[in-house]
Amino acid sequence: MRRPCIVGVMGGARADAASCENAYRLGALIALQGWVLLNGGRNTGIMEASARGAAEAGGLTIGILPDAHTANASQFVRVAVCTGMGSARNVINVLSSNVIVACSGGAGTLSEIALALKHGKPVITLGYDLSQCLQFYQGHGSVCTAATPQEAIARIQSILDQVSRVD
Amino acid sequence: MRRPCIVGVMGGARADAASCENAYRLGALIALQGWVLLNGGRNTGIMEASARGAAEAGGLTIGILPDAHTANASQFVRVAVCTGMGSARNVINVLSSNVIVACSGGAGTLSEIALALKHGKPVITLGYDLSQCLQFYQGHGSVCTAATPQEAIARIQSILDQVSRVD
Amino acid sequence: MRRPCIVGVMGGARADAASCENAYRLGALIALQGWVLLNGGRNTGIMEASARGAAEAGGLTIGILPDAHTANASQFVRVAVCTGMGSARNVINVLSSNVIVACSGGAGTLSEIALALKHGKPVITLGYDLSQCLQFYQGHGSVCTAATPQEAIARIQSILDQVSRVD
Amino acid sequence: MRRPCIVGVMGGARADAASCENAYRLGALIALQGWVLLNGGRNTGIMEASARGAAEAGGLTIGILPDAHTANASQFVRVAVCTGMGSARNVINVLSSNVIVACSGGAGTLSEIALALKHGKPVITLGYDLSQCLQFYQGHGSVCTAATPQEAIARIQSILDQVSRVD
Repeated sequence: MRRPCIVGVMGGARADAASCENAYRLGALIALQGWVLLNGGRNTGIMEASARGAAEAGGLTIGILPDAHTANASQFVRVAVCTGMGSARNVINVLSSNVIVACSGGAGTLSEIALALKHGKPVITLGYDLSQCLQFYQGHGSVCTAATPQEAIARIQSILDQVSRVD
Repeated sequence: MRRPCIVGVMGGARADAASCENAYRLGALIALQGWVLLNGGRNTGIMEASARGAAEAGGLTIGILPDAHTANASQFVRVAVCTGMGSARNVINVLSSNVIVACSGGAGTLSEIALALKHGKPVITLGYDLSQCLQFYQGHGSVCTAATPQEAIARIQSILDQVSRVD
Repeated sequence: MRRPCIVGVMGGARADAASCENAYRLGALIALQGWVLLNGGRNTGIMEASARGAAEAGGLTIGILPDAHTANASQFVRVAVCTGMGSARNVINVLSSNVIVACSGGAGTLSEIALALKHGKPVITLGYDLSQCLQFYQGHGSVCTAATPQEAIARIQSILDQVSRVD
Repeated sequence: MRRPCIVGVMGGARADAASCENAYRLGALIALQGWVLLNGGRNTGIMEASARGAAEAGGLTIGILPDAHTANASQFVRVAVCTGMGSARNVINVLSSNVIVACSGGAGTLSEIALALKHGKPVITLGYDLSQCLQFYQGHGSVCTAATPQEAIARIQSILDQVSRVD
């Protein structure tokens, strides 16, 4: 893969302090790996926290906005992609990422996990247990869980190693 | 509501015979109520069965295709809307429907349930139990379960009655 | 073609009285042919006029809305498809129609003409002369001009005859 | 504007050598200004040439692909955004760019010019004269013509100066 790996970090526009702290650390670790962080681009919750973490660590951040403008974009998003397509941008988040990390979230995040599974993208849940819900998918190995940002990074690395071994 | 109610019937492109039989009956009952059936438009699984049920009962059927063409559209879809947008058409399925009935399906159907919840659309699951998965949403009353097509129709009617009482 | 022909009628949200009168007549003639009228679904300009013409003549009308809701939909649209995708719905208008008639309009209508040409859909301009602009396409016969709604109908009929002769 | 300016370079997947040479130079000049180049992401024609120009000059390149995958992406695109939405990605190209430069192209490029005009984005045509077609828009100053890549850069700079003076 010549292009840098893109890690999609999904999660709620509203999130508690602990989840945001995790998202911030995850963003920083993604940047330190030389990977690109991609998220939903808004200036709240998991989106703001993960973009801030990556940007402050010197990483490249891409925000796929539901809006036609940048008025509500995070200042930590370096490139704001304006779709003007609302929730349809969730599909773009998934298709553009090599791996998805799903932080704490609601129905929007669940839709992104489901779309990732449909399109064969690996999903790592971070502080968001869906094992009951998705047990029939976990058998196929496409969803796994990480307890910490560090563990999520290790899992991404493991997934990338498998892919490059196949190539 | 001057326009006829649109019932979105979601479900897998692959489905077992019993689920297809349920989808067929559901489609027929929707048509007999004078409602419009909307689905993903393809000629397989729940889509084909539900469109056939509605069409054979004289109802209007709308298929929102992921494709840019009608080559794989069900012959029982009267109006084929070609999006050329792949899974992004799932969002259109949800936004265009007054109520969603989710039949047996996989990750695509789960994405539609999640998108419906995000956009405040009532969801009825038919032969597809997500209570474990979505228990935090069921508390808000936006997901309910039906054991049979007849029960699904009764629940839709109940939802429409609530809406018209508010208007 | 088992499904009825879908005629996409494009044109501005703002339009003068003569253009709206033409769109109204065009809609009525489309309905009388047994064809489905598809447009952008809003309750203004060419959209409102063409939907009204078709609906009052007993035809089926489909509106592909840029919005996620029906608040601004024409009352003459029988089935409102809510995309929530803004201008991206212009692509759906084009892909879903067998033939496009472009009435008086602005940049949005021009985008639909261009998208139709890109996707090989026949375009008839009605009261909107683009011969200067698109002369390099007219050589390929995919754009033609009609002076009246009746002439537009004759041209659609001629296009459908050619298609069925090939099939 | 804290984020770097995004210049959208539009143009055909097929283009003659002179147009590609212009696109290459334009891409290089955009990079030298510190701006981000955004285009349709494919590995042919104006897309390949402009991405190559920018990448070889050390600039950041974003490709908004019509595809759900990167199989046909230019190797000079640093971040490939996979939409899986076909021509609907043209809308994203336009909404995400601060300024559009339209190189030689066909109907797809014309659709992007039209969409840019609809959404109030400044358009500069480079080697692609649409003055006959768009004369009614040029009166509003939103389309202008550049004879060379250098002139296009000067016009972009002038547009950015006007915007920052207003802010």
